[in-house]
Amino acid sequence: MSTDSSLSFLPDNQVLPLIDWLFTFGRTKENGTTRLLYSDSWLNAQHAIYDKLKSSGLSPFFDDVGNLYGRVEGTEADDAAIVTGSHIDSVVNGGKYDGTYGIIASLLAVHHLLNEYGPPKKRIDVVSLCEEEGSRFPLTFWGSGNITGKYTEINTDELLDKEGMSLTEAMHRAGFGKGVYPSPQRNDIESFIELHIEQGHVLEKSGSSLGIVESIVGQRRYNIYVNGESNHAGTTPMSFRRDAMHTASGLIQWLTAKAREIDPHLVATVGKIEARPNTPNVIAGEVMFSLDIRHHRTEVLDAYCSHMFEHFHEISVRTGVSISPSQWTDAAPVNMDPYITKTAFDLSRQHHLPAQYMISGAGHDAQMFGTYCAASLIFVPSHNGVSHAPQEYTDKKDLENGIHMLTELLYKLAY
Amino acid sequence: MSTDSSLSFLPDNQVLPLIDWLFTFGRTKENGTTRLLYSDSWLNAQHAIYDKLKSSGLSPFFDDVGNLYGRVEGTEADDAAIVTGSHIDSVVNGGKYDGTYGIIASLLAVHHLLNEYGPPKKRIDVVSLCEEEGSRFPLTFWGSGNITGKYTEINTDELLDKEGMSLTEAMHRAGFGKGVYPSPQRNDIESFIELHIEQGHVLEKSGSSLGIVESIVGQRRYNIYVNGESNHAGTTPMSFRRDAMHTASGLIQWLTAKAREIDPHLVATVGKIEARPNTPNVIAGEVMFSLDIRHHRTEVLDAYCSHMFEHFHEISVRTGVSISPSQWTDAAPVNMDPYITKTAFDLSRQHHLPAQYMISGAGHDAQMFGTYCAASLIFVPSHNGVSHAPQEYTDKKDLENGIHMLTELLYKLAY
Repeated sequence: MSTDSSLSFLPDNQVLPLIDWLFTFGRTKENGTTRLLYSDSWLNAQHAIYDKLKSSGLSPFFDDVGNLYGRVEGTEADDAAIVTGSHIDSVVNGGKYDGTYGIIASLLAVHHLLNEYGPPKKRIDVVSLCEEEGSRFPLTFWGSGNITGKYTEINTDELLDKEGMSLTEAMHRAGFGKGVYPSPQRNDIESFIELHIEQGHVLEKSGSSLGIVESIVGQRRYNIYVNGESNHAGTTPMSFRRDAMHTASGLIQWLTAKAREIDPHLVATVGKIEARPNTPNVIAGEVMFSLDIRHHRTEVLDAYCSHMFEHFHEISVRTGVSISPSQWTDAAPVNMDPYITKTAFDLSRQHHLPAQYMISGAGHDAQMFGTYCAASLIFVPSHNGVSHAPQEYTDKKDLENGIHMLTELLYKLAY
Repeated sequence: MSTDSSLSFLPDNQVLPLIDWLFTFGRTKENGTTRLLYSDSWLNAQHAIYDKLKSSGLSPFFDDVGNLYGRVEGTEADDAAIVTGSHIDSVVNGGKYDGTYGIIASLLAVHHLLNEYGPPKKRIDVVSLCEEEGSRFPLTFWGSGNITGKYTEINTDELLDKEGMSLTEAMHRAGFGKGVYPSPQRNDIESFIELHIEQGHVLEKSGSSLGIVESIVGQRRYNIYVNGESNHAGTTPMSFRRDAMHTASGLIQWLTAKAREIDPHLVATVGKIEARPNTPNVIAGEVMFSLDIRHHRTEVLDAYCSHMFEHFHEISVRTGVSISPSQWTDAAPVNMDPYITKTAFDLSRQHHLPAQYMISGAGHDAQMFGTYCAASLIFVPSHNGVSHAPQEYTDKKDLENGIHMLTELLYKLAY
């Protein structure tokens, strides 16, 4: 590939038809996508991609949890694969680019490379990962977690969807988990490259086409239980109250203000709240709210949480209202591979693709690979930063720029 | 009745057995009471009281919405009745004294007066009002509202319980609303006297046996709709957010603080909150919370609301988050009759019953009568201020003191 190659090398107008084609699997009335792990729409989508991989000259195969690969063997038989792709599942009524775009981009890039340059030196596997979102069962990264060996101890009988079906049964019904296909765990992956929509509006605001991710944030999630005293809203003077809603609202104010104060990259979100008895004329005795904290440096997360625990203690002592945080997620920050990241940035310069380094505030499959092999994550802009909704949209030009970058990068690493 | 009469004049130990007897109608597993308007437990309770009124020498009859009266005709036929009682319905899993106590107290007081002094000069009606709580259908004071002519324009076909049954149908199934019984609206009531548990802990804290209510607070209730922008909790920097939860929590803090600042009798309660999408990793785009404001003077309510609207406007302009209050209750403060109130207070002195004047922070049937005839409301203590819960409790001595007061008052007014 010459350094003066431009977007015109790519077969034009392929990405949108393919995205629209995959959108037919699980399309909702609201014009969104619902493609939950092992559901019919999921199964149909995986089988359709299987056929598409085959007709594109790749050798398709499933693993035993339903990850789908399209393999191109390398001419130098060192058995170290470059894996590229994203996840096929969606949230309920999500958009048509999240996950899907990364799979289609990989397929188009590899298909183009095969046509132009023949087989690579290194094995390339396009991958359609079975699950990332955690929308059906109470776990996330079921695809990449199995490949990287992080789910060896899980009891799939105990994980139930909201209809009460176990992960085991859902997997079996879709034809997986019975040893028919090869075991998902791999030890031959040298690098993993994922193209994904940003799901934020950093790129759109800065006018960049590409975001080259240096780190994926660490995430800590808590449920904060605030317990005061439920009482009659009319007969209890303000000074006699131990109002859990009053205390909770003060904590939410403090938590969001503290995040702004500590570091501009720190985000703290209270997205969920539940009060009891949740009745207009009764003082709330209990309030539970969620807290989602993210930053790409562990020490910043530590500092925030330490301030938070101290504050909770102070308020609890002062008000007589108990405040109990219960942590349910603790994911460490993950760095992307510096060599691939730098290579991607250099390629963007070379090909005049406006790119910038960035931090991913969202979790992605690349973070599961990041502690296991060299991993890279590249973003394209999301219009208005909207994602996980039918309004999710990325401009065709941006989609094509991403595929161009991926093609260049794969060429550099595999040829 | 001589002025040296004491509690011993009352037949001892009657109030608790009668309260326990009514408690059998609608008793829950949690040892609470669920007696919703026109339900089986409600119907059985009203029919049991019908029989009890009859065996106590009163003439029982229903009106067409299910209010139950026990009449004693007066010897002076001026057709002006003194009505005394309370409501038979309960909240879901409520206590055994709320409403019930007032009915039983009236029955015992009138029964005693009849036995001791024969028929009164003025007609006395003991009443078991059909509904006050608003626990089944979206309306309150169905009993007293019908008697005082406040529900003449209501369409009972449109009011549905949570199973979708209309008020019309529920009423018909219980045998009412078909014109079999006399129309509920009355124009012969001279005064209404209600005995009720306090549902707060003002009396217990001050050591009084009786609270003689001067005013019932006005109530305004709002739903406050806060609309920001829903976004990804990881990819949206704090400075780009229009977080409805952050804004709502600030408003809740302000609203409760402002109530304390304006007047010690003012109460403001946010008891209910709902966020959308209510997901830990999504910034809340919408939050709705309820606001319940109460005070016994209209000008204090006006001042608070005026400050509130100004504050909402300021915050909305500053943050770009819209704040829309929607009012759904506006009940003016109601004064109790000064003559009966003063008479009750004087009687308490005379009989060495520790009493105090007070404001009712809760709504009661007496407020419906208060704009229609001379009304009086007298409280007995609630242990720990707990009400609308199985833990609701009033000491036997306090229950008896209340009945003593009611007996004295009825004697004074009717004999």
